[in-house]
Formats: sequence, C-alpha cells, structure tokens
Amino acid sequence: MDGYAVLAADTYGAGQFEPRTLEKIGVIHAGEVTDMELRSGKCIEIATGAKIPQGADAVVMIEDTESDEDTIKFFKPVYPEANLSKAGSDIARGTVILHKEEQVNPSKLGVITSLGLPEVPVYEKPKVMIIPTGNEVAEVGGELSEGQVFNSNSYALASIARENGGIPEIMSIIEDDEKALSEALKSSLTHDLVVLSGGSSVGERDVLVDVIEKLGKLLFHGVQVKPGKPLLLGEIEGKLVLGTPGYPTACLIDGYVFMAPIIRKLAHLPVKEKQKIPAMISRRIVSTLGRQQFLTVKMDNGEAVPVFKESGAITSMAEADGYVEIPANVDLLEKGDPVEVVLF
Amino acid sequence: MDGYAVLAADTYGAGQFEPRTLEKIGVIHAGEVTDMELRSGKCIEIATGAKIPQGADAVVMIEDTESDEDTIKFFKPVYPEANLSKAGSDIARGTVILHKEEQVNPSKLGVITSLGLPEVPVYEKPKVMIIPTGNEVAEVGGELSEGQVFNSNSYALASIARENGGIPEIMSIIEDDEKALSEALKSSLTHDLVVLSGGSSVGERDVLVDVIEKLGKLLFHGVQVKPGKPLLLGEIEGKLVLGTPGYPTACLIDGYVFMAPIIRKLAHLPVKEKQKIPAMISRRIVSTLGRQQFLTVKMDNGEAVPVFKESGAITSMAEADGYVEIPANVDLLEKGDPVEVVLF
Repeated sequence: MDGYAVLAADTYGAGQFEPRTLEKIGVIHAGEVTDMELRSGKCIEIATGAKIPQGADAVVMIEDTESDEDTIKFFKPVYPEANLSKAGSDIARGTVILHKEEQVNPSKLGVITSLGLPEVPVYEKPKVMIIPTGNEVAEVGGELSEGQVFNSNSYALASIARENGGIPEIMSIIEDDEKALSEALKSSLTHDLVVLSGGSSVGERDVLVDVIEKLGKLLFHGVQVKPGKPLLLGEIEGKLVLGTPGYPTACLIDGYVFMAPIIRKLAHLPVKEKQKIPAMISRRIVSTLGRQQFLTVKMDNGEAVPVFKESGAITSMAEADGYVEIPANVDLLEKGDPVEVVLF
Repeated sequence: MDGYAVLAADTYGAGQFEPRTLEKIGVIHAGEVTDMELRSGKCIEIATGAKIPQGADAVVMIEDTESDEDTIKFFKPVYPEANLSKAGSDIARGTVILHKEEQVNPSKLGVITSLGLPEVPVYEKPKVMIIPTGNEVAEVGGELSEGQVFNSNSYALASIARENGGIPEIMSIIEDDEKALSEALKSSLTHDLVVLSGGSSVGERDVLVDVIEKLGKLLFHGVQVKPGKPLLLGEIEGKLVLGTPGYPTACLIDGYVFMAPIIRKLAHLPVKEKQKIPAMISRRIVSTLGRQQFLTVKMDNGEAVPVFKESGAITSMAEADGYVEIPANVDLLEKGDPVEVVLF
C-alpha cells in the first residue's frame, strides 16, 4: 500500500477525532531500499511494493492519514503486519507453478515472467504440409482454363491448421500422377503431418492409395460421414498422411472434424471444446441412414437454417455459421426439432 | 460425379435386371475439355468436376453401371440434368459473397480463393505500444535488486493484445519521471493504442496524469471495479492512452475487461462472446458495495473456488480458470450460491 511504515503500537487508540501524530523521517519510493531504521514516534512514507524499513511492522494507508509537512496524523489503528506481504507468501521457494502440458495463456505468461524467466521449454508447433493435387486445379491469382477450379481448399485447410496450433505450408499444385505424387510425399516427410487436398475421390484415389501403399501403409480409406466420405489416412515413415476430398464442403468438414484434432494432438493442445448453441431446425431434413451427416446451417433468430446445397458448392460453407451433427441412425429431422449447432 | 455422360433418354427404363447398354467412345479426365460430341447410343466416361461434352444432358454415377471394356451397362435411369451443376448455380455473376466488416475464417477464405482472388482488402491489425513504467520494475531475464519486481505485466498485456487482434510491442522500462514518460508517450503515437503498465496507482499516478493533461486530455481516472480500480484513460492527438495498475491481478483484469474490447474495436473485430459456465461458489464471499468485483476462481467439480489472495499476488491469476462478476450492489455471496464463471 502507498502510505506510512510505522510501529503498529504507535497507532493504537487512534480514531477519527483522536489522531495519533508521528514525525516523518524519510521517504521510500518504489524500488528503493533504505538503511533508515524506524523507532517509536516516527514514520516513513512508503510506496506500494517497496521493502519496509527495519523496525517497522505495519503500513498505514495514505487515505487514513493527514500530512502537515513532516507531521503526520493517523486516524486509524493498524495491527502488526497490516498491509505487508511477507516474502514467499505468494509463491514460496519450491512451489510448482506450471505443469507439463499446461497451455500458456496471458496470466500464465505473467507468472513465468514474474519469476524473471526469459524462456521456458514449450512444444514445437507441428509443421503441416498441404499438397494440392489434381489436373483440374489452378493457382489462385492465375487464369482458369475451361474445366478448371481454383486451388481454394488448400487455403481453407491451411487456415484451419493455423487456428489449431499448426504451421501450414502450401506446396505448388501436383498433377494426378504416381511419380509426381510420390516425389511430393517423400519431400514432405520433413513435416509433422502431410495433408493432400483433392486426390481421394473415385478417379484419383487409386493413384494416391497406390503411392501410399508403396511408400508406407494405408490406415483407412472412407469414413461414414456426409459430406466428407472419401477421406483416407496413411502412414509413411511414422508420419501421418491425410487425403481429403476435392469437394469444398466435404474438404472443409473433414478439415474441421478430422484434421484439426490430429494437429491439436501433435501440438499437445487440449481437445477443443465445441461451442454449441441450441436451436430448432427450420425445415424437414432427410438424412442418410448409416452415415453421420454434418449439415451446414446458418443461425437465424434461434432457427438453424440449412445452407447445404451440394458438396461442390462453395456457398454451402460461406453462409454457414456451423453445423448440425445428425447421427448415423437418424434418417429424418422434422421442422422444429431441437438440434445443437456446433459453431465454426 | 465420377461416371458417364449420357443422353438421359438413353437410360429410361433401365433397371437392376434390364440394363441399358451404351458404347463408350472416350474419357474426359478432371480438368480436361473435349470436342467429342455425344449422340444417342453412346456414352463418355467423365470425372467429377469436368465439363460435360456437347450433346450430353446427364451423368450416371459409376456405382450404377458395369463396364465391359467399351460396353457399359446402366442399371438405373436418370432424368435430364441429373448430376450436373450449371454454371452460376453456386455463385452467380454479381452475387455479393462477403460483406464489409465480415470476419474471414477458413470457409470464407475458401470462398475468396475459389474465386481466384489472390488479395482482398482487410483492416490493418492495430499496433499496441506497451510501456512498462516504474523504478521498481526490472527486465525479465536480468537480475532483481532488492525491492524490485520483474516486468511481467507487460508480457501478460501483450499476450491479451495478441489474442484480440493487436500487434503488441513492448518498450524498454521507463522511469517514473515526467520527462521520460512524456518522451515515451510522444514516441508511441505512431501506434494505434498506448498502454502503460504500472504508473496509475497513488504514488505514480500524478506524474502520468500531469503528462497526459499536458500532451492531451484525461478522459477518466478510476473505475468502480475490484481489483483494477486505478485505471485511467487519456487521449493524445486522437490516440487512446490506457494506464493500468501495477498490481498483477488488477492489471490483468483491466487488460481483459477494458483493454481487450478497445483493441477489438480498433481491429474491427466483433465483441468477443464471453464463454460462461454455470457453477456454485465454494465458500462465502464478502464483496465491496459500490464496486463491481471480478473474483478470480478455478473450477473444481462444478464448484467455483476463489483463488484471489490479493491484487499483488501472481498466483491469484495463475491458478484461475476465469472470474465471477459480482455486481456493485451485491455485498455477499453465500456458499453454494449459483454463479457464472467467465472463462479466460
């Protein structure tokens, strides 16, 4: 506290109409240390956080005093040790202040730096190589030939990767060709995770599956979700290789639902709490039995309005605030049924 | 769809036991364009996303066919335009796809890049200059003299700034001295916001207030919150100057409650949705009438356990998962009372 270092006994009996008066013999500013010694009948002005002088056993807040040059009136008594913090009272020697796997946030960074530590060991952010594949894919910023689409999935995946603690890198577009794909994969094994954008749907999947089986092993191909079914996971030299479908909505759903948790695990980040809001579905929805459906919706006045057009539609995603998960054993949602919207 | 481009009429009447047979006259791979023309009785193999050949008016999924070299059996009829996407059916020319002030997320980045746009105009991230002040403050990584504390608040504030869209910069420590403070403030006006760490409590506040009033104007000094009361806001040449208290918990609370919204506003980011969880308070809490209290708590089995020791304690923050807001007109919470914990 800003105030006066005193001997508590000197303030006993002080009151609003019976102040005790002490002589001020000095000032201790913030960060200053003094060799003055305090004796009965005297006081020393002191700033918050400063070390109290020898002899003093309490501090009186400035608000409870009145100063007339070097004569200070005290209107309230204090007990010994009032307004003092003892060394070690906050963090004693030997106290564990942060644990392994604990995530550093602003307050924990405050703790680390308050101990003067300029560095603490942390896990490295996982490096994620994103490989755009397909003869029909063109670089953003360039020109589209007829029948081509821009390389948008790579950027969406990179953005999800970054949001989940990864450091993404996007390779230049690789043709659907066993040799090119094989080279690209091999050169990416310096990264912690390899994600292919496109290349896991019917036409192209055989090439990718062949390449993965040649270089490592295929862990699974195809998941019972909609959209996003043609997902594949392989392992090459201990590194995971995730093949996502080329359809934008399918790719993005797989990015959120499957890629993000892998990256968080590699980054030693905790599982992300899904932000869910309750809503009512705005219209009847027929789902596919046997596949868990991720229905993209936008929120409108407490209603979840489906915006899903088709897996290939960009707007299915752009207008979406989140998605509703329809379990594999549910084939129908009636208008007005309660649902939970998982926000993106 | 991966499948065959056909004339829909050629498939009418097809069934599981009565396939229609067509002759395959070519293949269109992804990204390819052909000048082949399709006539009745023929079909062309086609990849997802490829442009259909002239003459064709539908696509049959590969799953509904059987191939015997160049003779393809079709087991299901399709109607005209089946499995086709018309140009402009997703995003028609002239459609507004993103609005001003809309925040770019992975799916919206997908929309931007799917249109081939290599750049879109965005707001600049606000630059935040953080000025550590006080003679008692020592640089992290250096040595503490007696009576000193490390410059931890600056790092905690910088971390909050970064989390809320700002680009923080930390100045070297400035002494509590009118001239030094004035120079530091003037040189910081290149930034969008200036935040002083320390320097707004009793001993130092007069110097800072004087300097701000000399260079610009003081907007307010002191807010009815606890901890964090000695906050001040000034304006110099159109730039806001925020003075936060030196006590770690007070500084951090003011950082979250007052600084973060200012930065989000400067960054054109929406107001942050507070993540709140319901809990019961673990013990009786006496609050101060007339001041809104932010009580730091940790969560333990659905109970909100107060971890606040004193404003000066670092551990008040380190162990906290969030805080409970106790309104200014409430002076008592009984053990077991329902509260809402705002997570950090």
